[in-house]
Amino acid sequence: MRKLVSTITGQEYPFERLEEFADNGEALEVSLAGIERARLRPGRHLWERFAEFLPFKAMDASVSLGEGNTPLVDAGGRLQSFTGIDGLRLKNETQNPTWSFKDRGSLACIFMAQSMGERVTATISTGNMGHSIAAYGARAGITPLVFVPEFAPREKLMAMTIHGATVLRVCAPDYAAMKKAVLGLAKEFNLRIVSGNGPIRTEGYKLTAFELYEQTRGDQPDYIAVPTSACGHIRGLFKGFRELRAAGLINRLPRMIVVQAANNSPIVSAIKQGAQHVIPFANFHTVAEAITTGNPMGGDEIIAKAYEFGWLAEDAAEAEILEAQRVFARAGWFVEPATATTLCAVRKLRAAGRIGAGESVMLMLTGAGLKDLDALKHQPFKVIESNLDNVRGDLEHALK
Amino acid sequence: MRKLVSTITGQEYPFERLEEFADNGEALEVSLAGIERARLRPGRHLWERFAEFLPFKAMDASVSLGEGNTPLVDAGGRLQSFTGIDGLRLKNETQNPTWSFKDRGSLACIFMAQSMGERVTATISTGNMGHSIAAYGARAGITPLVFVPEFAPREKLMAMTIHGATVLRVCAPDYAAMKKAVLGLAKEFNLRIVSGNGPIRTEGYKLTAFELYEQTRGDQPDYIAVPTSACGHIRGLFKGFRELRAAGLINRLPRMIVVQAANNSPIVSAIKQGAQHVIPFANFHTVAEAITTGNPMGGDEIIAKAYEFGWLAEDAAEAEILEAQRVFARAGWFVEPATATTLCAVRKLRAAGRIGAGESVMLMLTGAGLKDLDALKHQPFKVIESNLDNVRGDLEHALK
Repeated sequence: MRKLVSTITGQEYPFERLEEFADNGEALEVSLAGIERARLRPGRHLWERFAEFLPFKAMDASVSLGEGNTPLVDAGGRLQSFTGIDGLRLKNETQNPTWSFKDRGSLACIFMAQSMGERVTATISTGNMGHSIAAYGARAGITPLVFVPEFAPREKLMAMTIHGATVLRVCAPDYAAMKKAVLGLAKEFNLRIVSGNGPIRTEGYKLTAFELYEQTRGDQPDYIAVPTSACGHIRGLFKGFRELRAAGLINRLPRMIVVQAANNSPIVSAIKQGAQHVIPFANFHTVAEAITTGNPMGGDEIIAKAYEFGWLAEDAAEAEILEAQRVFARAGWFVEPATATTLCAVRKLRAAGRIGAGESVMLMLTGAGLKDLDALKHQPFKVIESNLDNVRGDLEHALK
Repeated sequence: MRKLVSTITGQEYPFERLEEFADNGEALEVSLAGIERARLRPGRHLWERFAEFLPFKAMDASVSLGEGNTPLVDAGGRLQSFTGIDGLRLKNETQNPTWSFKDRGSLACIFMAQSMGERVTATISTGNMGHSIAAYGARAGITPLVFVPEFAPREKLMAMTIHGATVLRVCAPDYAAMKKAVLGLAKEFNLRIVSGNGPIRTEGYKLTAFELYEQTRGDQPDYIAVPTSACGHIRGLFKGFRELRAAGLINRLPRMIVVQAANNSPIVSAIKQGAQHVIPFANFHTVAEAITTGNPMGGDEIIAKAYEFGWLAEDAAEAEILEAQRVFARAGWFVEPATATTLCAVRKLRAAGRIGAGESVMLMLTGAGLKDLDALKHQPFKVIESNLDNVRGDLEHALK
């Protein structure tokens, strides 16, 4: 069994019972020690082929809902023109069982919980995470317990409850106060709170990098743009590529592009300013409601990695996000606003010459547009109202 | 180029310009003649490997949104106990680009439209079909024109419009009158109306059977349960298996299970009564709003096939559908009510001994639960309202 290590100090922690951060707030990860000896195995599932890269005892299909194996597609002419990037590709994580990238991390978390004999899996979430954990908990027969803030949208709670999750809506002065109270109680009740950036979730997101390795046959893109909030997705992806390199399967690491909404850009602002620490945001509003962590624990690790590995960082203003959501949809993909941030970010980076003319870019489509129908109220909605008497004329006019 | 033939009389029709039914209402299909010589080819995409089975000139990835390659998963203990069927598996078509099975048919339709130089693709739809055609039209640069009835839910129209579809809402005394008027106009304006059961869509759904052949390595299940409305999906699937058998790739055809809501069961009622023709339904209401064709053109073909090939047919009452949706979700899958019909149908068929003890069954998960949030208002919704003062006690109580 591998060790957990602090991404800042390198201090070691025991692997078991630990989903969250170290007490001092440092992000932990499963140690890479020994990964250079990991080899690919034959197998039907990704986790079988990459079993030697994973810290778990053998996973089995009984916890899986069929996550992953998502398409990697050329973005097409419309998105190429919009961004100015010819080598633009999309990795569509909305084609997961609960229609967001979260399912990869939930697989790892629930597998871990099951192997440790836990009966409850708890999380704090406003949406995608709670839905995903609820579904995977249901699959594994582990009760999902989701703490939600006052402002969590009703449709997201409906998706959690139909999966049988116990949902506790906790009124508090703000989200941070609510989180703090819940984390304290969790310790007292000996509940492991699954976070968006825990070391086990990261192991699940790592599998996306392995899948990309298989799909691109090792010819990974120059850049991968990731909407970033709690940071688990971007660090898991990058950890996967580092492990592929350590094992000698690839020679070159892709560079990550950290993308956030301008209205809540604690990491992107820090990187743009050359700061070492997260710049906390509070009392903001953004249409990109899936990326609203204002003061991400573990954000400092992402900032440090950005400098070390030459990552890029860019934000997206509210109007840009909505425009990008429309442009995505006009090219065929209906994504949630958080995902749309990547499209305007890479467009700006290309225009500024930060992304070079011949460089290739991959965007992570993290969540389905259906997940946030509320955001559509900001988009133009035009239906031609007709009836049996007028439909000929209306059709004639529409076809002009 | 293959011919189209009537599924009733065998009369031949030209392949091009024909998406819909023959003038006499008979369902058409691409002829199977010569399919016994078709061979598998190497290729990355399903349509490349099965190119010799398809009537199109070579397809290419520029029209694809990354549909298909969806998981086939064991249903797990909870659904096995509920149905009494040990060999129960799920084919999750909600993991398609617009989160329903429709995308497979849309790929074929839009590829066909593009290869014929059409600038507009039109359809009549209340939901999933319009959304899918809108997305694929956007991808291919072909304007989607969607005629919707008065009762089409706003969120479905929002999904269509963000993809850039032109949406005409046509008020009419009923859906049938609206359809008739639109089909008449289409002829006049030389517009091909893509239907849910046209011979080209069927060629798209056929690919699902080919994918299942690859996933099961030719060991297909005894039964496949399909929610049935316009009939395109079930006939496409079955046609795929017939072609696999004609080409010598499989020895045995799976038997289809036709599933409809009891409140609208024009085909299932006919089969149960031993009738030869569809029994039209009108003025009904069902929560399974994705399967509301009350008088399906081409339904007679399905009825004839049911007798010829020993298919089963079963319906689901409203309360059964809602129960099945909950049971599905408690096992990990959030499906729309139309999909849930299959679970209660196979449970009833097993209880009645129509499905034998050792027989294996596959359910087609046709549409995501997120597609119809309105239906969730019929499900229990329980959130524990708490606050910083009470959360400890509420948590204690919840964990009991």
